[in-house]
Amino acid sequence: MEKETARIEAFSDGVFAIAITLLILEIKVPPATVDLGSQLLRQWPSYVAFVISFAFIGIMWINHHRLFTHIHRSNTVLLILNLLLLLGVCWVPYPTAVLAQHLSAGDQKIAALLYHGSYFVIAIFFNVLWQYATHAGLLGHNANAAAAAKISRQYAFGPSLYLICIGLVWVNIPVSLLVNFALAIFFALPAEYVIKKERDFIG
Amino acid sequence: MEKETARIEAFSDGVFAIAITLLILEIKVPPATVDLGSQLLRQWPSYVAFVISFAFIGIMWINHHRLFTHIHRSNTVLLILNLLLLLGVCWVPYPTAVLAQHLSAGDQKIAALLYHGSYFVIAIFFNVLWQYATHAGLLGHNANAAAAAKISRQYAFGPSLYLICIGLVWVNIPVSLLVNFALAIFFALPAEYVIKKERDFIG
Amino acid sequence: MEKETARIEAFSDGVFAIAITLLILEIKVPPATVDLGSQLLRQWPSYVAFVISFAFIGIMWINHHRLFTHIHRSNTVLLILNLLLLLGVCWVPYPTAVLAQHLSAGDQKIAALLYHGSYFVIAIFFNVLWQYATHAGLLGHNANAAAAAKISRQYAFGPSLYLICIGLVWVNIPVSLLVNFALAIFFALPAEYVIKKERDFIG
Amino acid sequence: MEKETARIEAFSDGVFAIAITLLILEIKVPPATVDLGSQLLRQWPSYVAFVISFAFIGIMWINHHRLFTHIHRSNTVLLILNLLLLLGVCWVPYPTAVLAQHLSAGDQKIAALLYHGSYFVIAIFFNVLWQYATHAGLLGHNANAAAAAKISRQYAFGPSLYLICIGLVWVNIPVSLLVNFALAIFFALPAEYVIKKERDFIG
Repeated sequence: MEKETARIEAFSDGVFAIAITLLILEIKVPPATVDLGSQLLRQWPSYVAFVISFAFIGIMWINHHRLFTHIHRSNTVLLILNLLLLLGVCWVPYPTAVLAQHLSAGDQKIAALLYHGSYFVIAIFFNVLWQYATHAGLLGHNANAAAAAKISRQYAFGPSLYLICIGLVWVNIPVSLLVNFALAIFFALPAEYVIKKERDFIG
Repeated sequence: MEKETARIEAFSDGVFAIAITLLILEIKVPPATVDLGSQLLRQWPSYVAFVISFAFIGIMWINHHRLFTHIHRSNTVLLILNLLLLLGVCWVPYPTAVLAQHLSAGDQKIAALLYHGSYFVIAIFFNVLWQYATHAGLLGHNANAAAAAKISRQYAFGPSLYLICIGLVWVNIPVSLLVNFALAIFFALPAEYVIKKERDFIG
Repeated sequence: MEKETARIEAFSDGVFAIAITLLILEIKVPPATVDLGSQLLRQWPSYVAFVISFAFIGIMWINHHRLFTHIHRSNTVLLILNLLLLLGVCWVPYPTAVLAQHLSAGDQKIAALLYHGSYFVIAIFFNVLWQYATHAGLLGHNANAAAAAKISRQYAFGPSLYLICIGLVWVNIPVSLLVNFALAIFFALPAEYVIKKERDFIG
Repeated sequence: MEKETARIEAFSDGVFAIAITLLILEIKVPPATVDLGSQLLRQWPSYVAFVISFAFIGIMWINHHRLFTHIHRSNTVLLILNLLLLLGVCWVPYPTAVLAQHLSAGDQKIAALLYHGSYFVIAIFFNVLWQYATHAGLLGHNANAAAAAKISRQYAFGPSLYLICIGLVWVNIPVSLLVNFALAIFFALPAEYVIKKERDFIG
């Protein structure tokens, strides 16, 4: 059955790689006019959106990778839950483009809500996939129960943390985006490290 | 010869992964104006088309994957029939875009016919590929004849079920799309499960 | 050294899969107006160009695959010659789009020349790659010299056959495209079969 | 731990393959008018930009490949540094498109600066990745220290060489692009060969 997850991983890698590369297509080339320099500078929202989304998809890939070092078996439900997660990954370039085009315009609040809201839903999909895999007994026989529990713990924070981003939209949109970017870094850290820090902090 | 199908699977995985990710490019970002929220809502046909097509390609991938757990040998005819199927997969983003742009306009009937018609043809290609592989003796030596027969049976329904979608266009277009989506779920289920249910139903 | 060609093949598979899938992006969705049906029909040049290019890239992939069942070793020159071939593969969507947009317009001759000319150059790249690999001793130790010689023979026809397509542009453009499509089928056939037929024909 | 870098390589291969293939999307098809031939010729900046960027990404892939024949272990920092490098790879189609559209217009200086500047930053990312991998002990146990040192040496030239391209923009833009293209060839050569030539030259 290991072969089963091998092909899931290959297909998922492909989707992650394409979604992360398509982001650049959303940055439009300024038309050929006299003042290219200032036109390039005025596109800063596109660059900001590109970098945050790149970090998000890249770090989702790292996490997907981590989960599948534990998940060794597969079934139809896992295939469908993984497709649901990939639906989220494929969706990312769209809110990114909306944010890029509206960040300097009047409707930036709606654009930011669509952006953080998408990440909130993807964080839920990640939890559902992982919870299903652990409870349906799809982890490898030599899987480390403690390590798996730490992942569950780190991921459980995801949806609420993105909810905070959503709330911050009414306070300050740039800050909400900065927090979103910081969350990507948080999820890049291995669960062992995060949980240890949390204990140090509580203890 | 197993290596032969390994590279077919890798190439096909790539095509599936790209086609499913390109779907998002068909959703256009509303121009920067004052009322972004309602403009995003008005794009519902794009979202509907995106989700149905995503489900269709994703579940075609699951099925392709299942077929190739049985198919172990390859020859030139199989390569060409597989290319024909991939031609169908690559084509999907186009009727999806047509549907998305015309679902709320006057010509939704033609758009829906093109959409269901494309799926009808792809369902035929799937049957041709599978029938060829089984009759040309390309299955693995340890292939389960009963399991293969169940797949043949489930797939044989495909074309007629998509014909029903085509017929439903003259009755009610949203219902035809709902049935199309339900068919994706039907083909996501393993053949063993479907055939068992069918027997329970008949018996 | 086998691992070396494994990664070349994986990278090349990716490029082939993406180039073949991008072709669909060149077919533009007709704007939302009253007569969608006839607008879709008027796009026939796009469909023709899509199918021919799909066949060409798909069958190039089959051939690339065949070559690398013989090529087992790699070096910097092979990497660069392979990149040159992939440059040709990546280029294909562009002459396809030019052909699609100009086949029903006044400048179809130039569009057809660009199209066949691109294939002519790619056929040369294919020969250069294969000739280099055979003469630089990069084939596997158990490579069949007779089989390799047959491939060399079939490929040697490539450039001249596409030159014929170029010549046919001045006679009849649809016929030149039909011949181009027939050539794809010719190169899909295994070299053994082609050379045997040639002998039967001569003998 | 080898499996760890296997999946990094597969994901990176995907990103390289997509970025290199997306380049063609930046070449726009001339509208259907009477003089297609001269319109195609007038697009020479797009062809120049396409070929240089293709060479750059292709040869970055060759180099990434070379590095990972030495790197056998992975950790979170390496994953993030590799993502940073891929960010650079994904970015390339954008300065390429800017260059293509502005090379024959008035603002070619800014476009050329953006282009060379992007390559300068990517060259730094390459050095950071490699220096980290060597100093954090991620090379394979049987890694050749001398070969690794030669790579370090060749790469150390990268940023300064692209700085020269930046400087050349004020002298002559076509020459700066020619030098950029020549650098791709320089980095295609194996480090052993480059360092040997350097010694011959000095000695």
